Amino acid sequence: DFDNALDEVKPMFGVSQEELAQVIQNGVIDYDPIVDALLHDGRLLIEQVRTSKRTPLVSVLLHGPSGSGKTALAATIAQASEFPFIRLISPESMVGYSPSQKIADINKVFSDSYKSPLSVIVIDNLERLLEWVNIGPNFSNPVLQALLVLLHRIPPKGRRLLVIATTSIRSMLLDTELPQAFDKDIYVPPISTLPAFQSVLSHLHLFRNEEELRYAMKLVADTGFGAGNSQGSGLSIGIKKLLSIIEMARLEPDNSAQRLKSALLDLRIQ
Amino acid sequence: DFDNALDEVKPMFGVSQEELAQVIQNGVIDYDPIVDALLHDGRLLIEQVRTSKRTPLVSVLLHGPSGSGKTALAATIAQASEFPFIRLISPESMVGYSPSQKIADINKVFSDSYKSPLSVIVIDNLERLLEWVNIGPNFSNPVLQALLVLLHRIPPKGRRLLVIATTSIRSMLLDTELPQAFDKDIYVPPISTLPAFQSVLSHLHLFRNEEELRYAMKLVADTGFGAGNSQGSGLSIGIKKLLSIIEMARLEPDNSAQRLKSALLDLRIQ
Amino acid sequence: DFDNALDEVKPMFGVSQEELAQVIQNGVIDYDPIVDALLHDGRLLIEQVRTSKRTPLVSVLLHGPSGSGKTALAATIAQASEFPFIRLISPESMVGYSPSQKIADINKVFSDSYKSPLSVIVIDNLERLLEWVNIGPNFSNPVLQALLVLLHRIPPKGRRLLVIATTSIRSMLLDTELPQAFDKDIYVPPISTLPAFQSVLSHLHLFRNEEELRYAMKLVADTGFGAGNSQGSGLSIGIKKLLSIIEMARLEPDNSAQRLKSALLDLRIQ
Amino acid sequence: DFDNALDEVKPMFGVSQEELAQVIQNGVIDYDPIVDALLHDGRLLIEQVRTSKRTPLVSVLLHGPSGSGKTALAATIAQASEFPFIRLISPESMVGYSPSQKIADINKVFSDSYKSPLSVIVIDNLERLLEWVNIGPNFSNPVLQALLVLLHRIPPKGRRLLVIATTSIRSMLLDTELPQAFDKDIYVPPISTLPAFQSVLSHLHLFRNEEELRYAMKLVADTGFGAGNSQGSGLSIGIKKLLSIIEMARLEPDNSAQRLKSALLDLRIQ
Amino acid sequence: DFDNALDEVKPMFGVSQEELAQVIQNGVIDYDPIVDALLHDGRLLIEQVRTSKRTPLVSVLLHGPSGSGKTALAATIAQASEFPFIRLISPESMVGYSPSQKIADINKVFSDSYKSPLSVIVIDNLERLLEWVNIGPNFSNPVLQALLVLLHRIPPKGRRLLVIATTSIRSMLLDTELPQAFDKDIYVPPISTLPAFQSVLSHLHLFRNEEELRYAMKLVADTGFGAGNSQGSGLSIGIKKLLSIIEMARLEPDNSAQRLKSALLDLRIQ
Amino acid sequence: DFDNALDEVKPMFGVSQEELAQVIQNGVIDYDPIVDALLHDGRLLIEQVRTSKRTPLVSVLLHGPSGSGKTALAATIAQASEFPFIRLISPESMVGYSPSQKIADINKVFSDSYKSPLSVIVIDNLERLLEWVNIGPNFSNPVLQALLVLLHRIPPKGRRLLVIATTSIRSMLLDTELPQAFDKDIYVPPISTLPAFQSVLSHLHLFRNEEELRYAMKLVADTGFGAGNSQGSGLSIGIKKLLSIIEMARLEPDNSAQRLKSALLDLRIQ
Ligand SMILES: Nc1ncnc2c1ncn2[C@@H]1O[C@H](COP(=O)(O)OP(=O)(O)OP(=O)(O)O)[C@@H](O)[C@H]1O
Ligand SMILES: Nc1ncnc2c1ncn2[C@@H]1O[C@H](COP(=O)(O)OP(=O)(O)OP(=O)(O)O)[C@@H](O)[C@H]1O
Ligand SMILES: Nc1ncnc2c1ncn2[C@@H]1O[C@H](COP(=O)(O)OP(=O)(O)OP(=O)(O)O)[C@@H](O)[C@H]1O
Ligand SMILES: Nc1ncnc2c1ncn2[C@@H]1O[C@H](COP(=O)(O)OP(=O)(O)OP(=O)(O)O)[C@@H](O)[C@H]1O
Ligand SMILES: Nc1ncnc2c1ncn2[C@@H]1O[C@H](COP(=O)(O)OP(=O)(O)OP(=O)(O)O)[C@@H](O)[C@H]1O
Ligand SMILES: Nc1ncnc2c1ncn2[C@@H]1O[C@H](COP(=O)(O)OP(=O)(O)OP(=O)(O)O)[C@@H](O)[C@H]1O
Ligand SMILES: [Mg+2]
Ligand SMILES: [Mg+2]
Ligand SMILES: [Mg+2]
Ligand SMILES: [Mg+2]
Ligand SMILES: [Mg+2]
Ligand SMILES: [Mg+2]
Repeated sequence: DFDNALDEVKPMFGVSQEELAQVIQNGVIDYDPIVDALLHDGRLLIEQVRTSKRTPLVSVLLHGPSGSGKTALAATIAQASEFPFIRLISPESMVGYSPSQKIADINKVFSDSYKSPLSVIVIDNLERLLEWVNIGPNFSNPVLQALLVLLHRIPPKGRRLLVIATTSIRSMLLDTELPQAFDKDIYVPPISTLPAFQSVLSHLHLFRNEEELRYAMKLVADTGFGAGNSQGSGLSIGIKKLLSIIEMARLEPDNSAQRLKSALLDLRIQ
Repeated sequence: DFDNALDEVKPMFGVSQEELAQVIQNGVIDYDPIVDALLHDGRLLIEQVRTSKRTPLVSVLLHGPSGSGKTALAATIAQASEFPFIRLISPESMVGYSPSQKIADINKVFSDSYKSPLSVIVIDNLERLLEWVNIGPNFSNPVLQALLVLLHRIPPKGRRLLVIATTSIRSMLLDTELPQAFDKDIYVPPISTLPAFQSVLSHLHLFRNEEELRYAMKLVADTGFGAGNSQGSGLSIGIKKLLSIIEMARLEPDNSAQRLKSALLDLRIQ
Repeated sequence: DFDNALDEVKPMFGVSQEELAQVIQNGVIDYDPIVDALLHDGRLLIEQVRTSKRTPLVSVLLHGPSGSGKTALAATIAQASEFPFIRLISPESMVGYSPSQKIADINKVFSDSYKSPLSVIVIDNLERLLEWVNIGPNFSNPVLQALLVLLHRIPPKGRRLLVIATTSIRSMLLDTELPQAFDKDIYVPPISTLPAFQSVLSHLHLFRNEEELRYAMKLVADTGFGAGNSQGSGLSIGIKKLLSIIEMARLEPDNSAQRLKSALLDLRIQ
Repeated sequence: DFDNALDEVKPMFGVSQEELAQVIQNGVIDYDPIVDALLHDGRLLIEQVRTSKRTPLVSVLLHGPSGSGKTALAATIAQASEFPFIRLISPESMVGYSPSQKIADINKVFSDSYKSPLSVIVIDNLERLLEWVNIGPNFSNPVLQALLVLLHRIPPKGRRLLVIATTSIRSMLLDTELPQAFDKDIYVPPISTLPAFQSVLSHLHLFRNEEELRYAMKLVADTGFGAGNSQGSGLSIGIKKLLSIIEMARLEPDNSAQRLKSALLDLRIQ
Repeated sequence: DFDNALDEVKPMFGVSQEELAQVIQNGVIDYDPIVDALLHDGRLLIEQVRTSKRTPLVSVLLHGPSGSGKTALAATIAQASEFPFIRLISPESMVGYSPSQKIADINKVFSDSYKSPLSVIVIDNLERLLEWVNIGPNFSNPVLQALLVLLHRIPPKGRRLLVIATTSIRSMLLDTELPQAFDKDIYVPPISTLPAFQSVLSHLHLFRNEEELRYAMKLVADTGFGAGNSQGSGLSIGIKKLLSIIEMARLEPDNSAQRLKSALLDLRIQ
Repeated sequence: DFDNALDEVKPMFGVSQEELAQVIQNGVIDYDPIVDALLHDGRLLIEQVRTSKRTPLVSVLLHGPSGSGKTALAATIAQASEFPFIRLISPESMVGYSPSQKIADINKVFSDSYKSPLSVIVIDNLERLLEWVNIGPNFSNPVLQALLVLLHRIPPKGRRLLVIATTSIRSMLLDTELPQAFDKDIYVPPISTLPAFQSVLSHLHLFRNEEELRYAMKLVADTGFGAGNSQGSGLSIGIKKLLSIIEMARLEPDNSAQRLKSALLDLRIQ
């Protein structure tokens, strides 16, 4: 029966809890209204899986530029579901696996999920699972084929599953038909406005007082950051990279504002 | 003798019954006259296999855009035959198989079918069996070659076999000569008219009354849906995707019509 | 000695008899003078192998469009030789074999043939043995190389061998040098004249009387069939496909003529 | 010591004798002065290997169109040497071998040859050993590399070796640098003059009297055969193919001349 | 506990110490202010890893032309950290390893590092680890994927890691996204000014007196060395190559200056 | 200790002595001043390895057209060093080895060399070790990578190593970066002047008297040999090929001069 079946996979379940926590080490800062909106979208999907009888499988793809917070958000949404089965499929635990070992692991997680009435599977970093490289392009077709089939396979009667995947190269993957295999896309944008930028600075207490912060924001504005129009032509930075820049700047307390500015200018060149 | 031979494969037979049911979970809604026509075509083929002595092997390819209902129809036609041997060959039960394992499984089903006087084999999703990806293109030539030979191999004296296959990329496969290996093609169209759309809505009771339905259909018409001419230039949607959109809309009962509309508009962008 | 050697391979010999019969299930209908001419050519080759001391190996390639009757003719010629060793090499018995398994099997048949003073080997469907696909093109070079060598290898003193191979893509194979490895080519044409077409209809008794037949032939003529000039620009149909069309038409006795007509029109589109 | 070493390889030696005889089944007809010239060239090479101390390894490549008699000539030259070690390396005894098995066999023959003071190795049909196909082109690089090294490797002190190889695609192989690895090239031409043609006919007694022969030669001349200038623009035919055509013609004694003529005309089309 | 865990990896730790010393055999000569600046940058990164709680993983890529001193600098920075875990991953200890053996070794070093609270891993010569060759280009995608994942994988709670990698083909690697995976880039320039050049000569005592040195520098200046503008259009030489040239020149004490000059002129041609 | 370590590799050492002798079977003829210059360059390199403490690894690439004497010169220089460890790495002893076997053998020689204070390793014929073919081009990337790493790997403290490699396709290999991995290039030219040509003839006593020699040189000059300008546009011939031509000519004492002439003219056509 189901209880026993769940027992079988419980130890793995615990591991996944830790893994989810690991990828949200720096929390989810509410630096912009979009953050709440994204979490709300996640809750609706959880709700659909919980209630609809005609769609036992729902899949969503979180995509956006490098470091925009996709993995942390995916893990946060999954945790919020409180479903009895929540698992993270990540390339980080598969270093050096052959494609067929990867497929076996991924397939196992899907099969295990069918033992729970309600499940969430997070598939992090599709491009790394696929071993994608833009030279060629080259990638593991067996892994691709397995994902295409699994994202299409309806769970057995009475089982319901939400799949949340992430990628930072959605447009490059279009020819694989993998992005098209999801029921829904959610775009996770980078930080590109001055208020959002300032909100992160405040949250992390980089500056000792309001004046320092104001001065820093003036320097930031000087770089042209936040001046982009809605077509996204301006400078932008993922929350992950911003955290890194802030920590570097923190090393020289008397020079932090200058440091932030040059780091932003470096983004331009790269 | 035959009875014993059949015993051998019976357990597998039962499994296939379940699998067929699984892919028709949401039934076959009669939303358009084409649905009856397709089922009628299927019955004629069954009849030919049953009666003609000169064509012991008949093969048909159901093709049409993603989610148009090909798999559900193929399974429905197969079930209706009431032949003693009905089997579904699906990539979903072969995740992570090597090409040679796939071929062995497929070949086994054909060999088993030769033990029954009358058989139907459904080969679902040719593109996934072939591990097709449009980059290259790349695919498994061994699986292709096996299918080409099996679709050409006449059953032993006294045995008759109908093969029903499905694909949503028939035109891309033309260079493989696989589509040309079938005796007959059947096109399964997506939903592209307002009456068919409304028929599905009614069937699923998304709206609480006629007025809501009428209002929703007005919004749907506003998107331009149903305005395409016979050359198919208009918007269209597979029955599978439509079911999914309806279930999402159902989550917000007061806003369902609006939700349907925006989902249809999203189809345009993709 | 030879008798014993033959004993060794006899069981295989019997199997091949059955296999030959299997591919001529619908007989060889004498629908056109060309049919007799082809069989006559075959008899001459048999005669050369039987009598000439300087050409212990003779090879011939039957080629022509899909379904034109190549396999049935090759088997018929082989059977007519009444040589003590007659074997069919066919991809149909090698589904899922690796190239090296295929080569081992093929090589074994040739080696076995050297134990008989007079032998015929039919190699059916070269393109499938080669695992040819026109994307690339891609094919099994090891199988190609084995065939090139075997078609060049002279049997030991006192042994004589006729090799009859078939293909429907001779012109595509020219770059492999395989077609050029044969001593002789024989073209097996499709049906492209009204008298030949009518002859098949009569032979199969599709119509209940002469009037129905005449009416059907009028409809057939209306499609433009038979109007092609000697450069082959007109419509044509392989005997295999024609048999299939006739059996479909037979399902609706009152509508058979119309059915034939639409099937012919469908050929145009494909 | 050497005697013992030779004992080791003797059984193989005997086999090679038979193999050499096998490829000269139809003898070497002296149809043209070139035939003697070629055999003379061969004797000179044998002489150089026997006498020169500074060139312990001499290699020669016999090349010319398909069926011009390269293999028969190579075997004849080798036999004439009467060296204690004469071996034939031929793809015909390696059907289905992997490249590494081929290399092992070839390398073994070279190593064995080092046990004899004087040796000849015939390497027949380089293109088949290389598994060459002009699509790509594709070939076995490991076999190529092994041949390049072996054709460059000087035998141990006191041992001398003549390597005679054959190919009908010398110009296609130039990019592999294999043809350039030989010390000397010898071109084996096809038959392209009327006297040479007639000489073969006479030798094989195809016609019952001089008159028939003269008549046949008139028909042959009518095809334009023999009218080519020294740039080789005319019709030509390998001795091997000519033997085959003659044997076919022999089947109908009253029509042999006509048959020859049409066979020659067929050469034009191909 | 940690002490035990460290014990486990200690023997390996000792080996790495030796390996680090090995790659700095000729020390770090302070020939230019840039040398101090580079070492200072290194110390700051060490500091960030030691102190920041939000960036447990910091990665830096040392890049610059062949022989500019990248490996020696990376090892020097690593040694200066005095962290309990310092390891060198180098292709030199992996000659002939398969990609999967390489990945296993690399992954092991990362896993071992997680047992120490503070670690430095030097990954030397990315292009050789990747088996990169510019024909194609061709490289080991599995190794690339493993590096991409490892450079992204955050150490477990309480562990901090600095990764220092080197490459001389950063711009060629951009398409692999590997350079972009680092938090920071540091450019290690070659020697391109006369003062830096002279400083190395003095340090190595190539000349017996000031006059000889002055004369040599005049010859060097004659080659145009040191005349390049800030866009780097002039001649330049890595410290490694310069050491080699100096040692060659030292062989002929009376001619050393001339030798240096011609070696520099040779650089131009290559 | 070192003595013991050397014992271990001694048996191999002896073998290499023989191998070196084998490749200089025809000695080093002093046909031109360049020959002495090349040997002098070799001695200087030996000297640098013996004395310099800062360059424990020195590598040199002998390159030049096919048969110009590269291998014989490399072996001669190596022998002249009288270092305790001298080894020849040659594709001739690796026929049929897999790339990984080759790498293991090569790596072993390098590792063994580290046991001697002073070593020379000759790597003959880089293009064959790499399994290079100019179609593609195609080659063994694993072997390339191993060579690139080994040519970069500094021997342990107190060990010094000279690597002498040869190739006749240096310019084709530039994209592999292998030629650039050497510290020094030495060009070994073919014979292209009449005095050098005559010097070889005299040395080998091809002619019975001065008059014959003079006559022969006149014929040679008639071919245009020796008339090339310094840009190398004239005819040239490697010493190896010249030895071969001379031995062929020697077979017919009365016609030797004519034979030389035609052999030279043949060079033009090829
Ligand atoms: N609002 C937020 N949304 C997401 N992450 C946040 C937010 N606020 C803070 N963070 C922190 O920022 C980091 C986001 O990194 P994460 O790995 O999720 O980005 P990513 O887009 O998945 O990066 P990559 O493209 O490299 O996969 C995490 O450490 C997370 O705790
Ligand atoms: N008239 C109908 N025809 C087909 N399917 C229908 C029909 N009415 C309802 N359905 C339901 O719609 C769904 C059709 O999905 P199905 O998997 O058959 O589509 P598909 O064309 O095979 O999709 P894909 O292109 O992804 O393979 C099934 O759940 C089926 O029960
Ligand atoms: N005159 C005929 N010649 C050949 N086959 C005939 C003839 N008359 C009837 N037939 C029947 O027609 C069918 C011909 O099919 P066959 O498989 O030989 O064609 P094919 O050209 O080999 O097809 P494919 O191109 O698919 O290999 C057989 O069933 C055969 O019995
Ligand atoms: N003068 C001749 N030279 C060579 N072969 C001759 C001659 N006269 C008769 N023959 C016969 O002609 C045949 C020549 O065939 P052979 O296999 O040697 O040709 P080939 O050029 O090697 O063919 P391929 O290009 O197919 O390898 C042999 O049967 C040989 O006995
Ligand atoms: N200031 C310096 N910086 C770096 N190396 C120096 C310096 N001064 C002397 N050296 C010596 O110069 C050599 C630099 O060689 P190193 O291998 O580090 O260069 P590299 O850039 O890594 O070369 P490659 O591009 O081949 O990997 C070492 O022997 C080192 O001891
Ligand atoms: N001055 C010379 N330099 C080199 N070799 C000489 C010289 N004089 C005579 N020889 C002889 O010439 C031959 C040169 O052949 P070697 O194999 O060294 O040429 P190679 O350039 O290595 O050829 P390949 O390009 O085929 O590898 C040897 O037999 C050698 O003994
Ligand atoms: Mg992520
Ligand atoms: Mg389907
Ligand atoms: Mg056939
Ligand atoms: Mg031959
Ligand atoms: Mg380095
Ligand atoms: Mg050489």
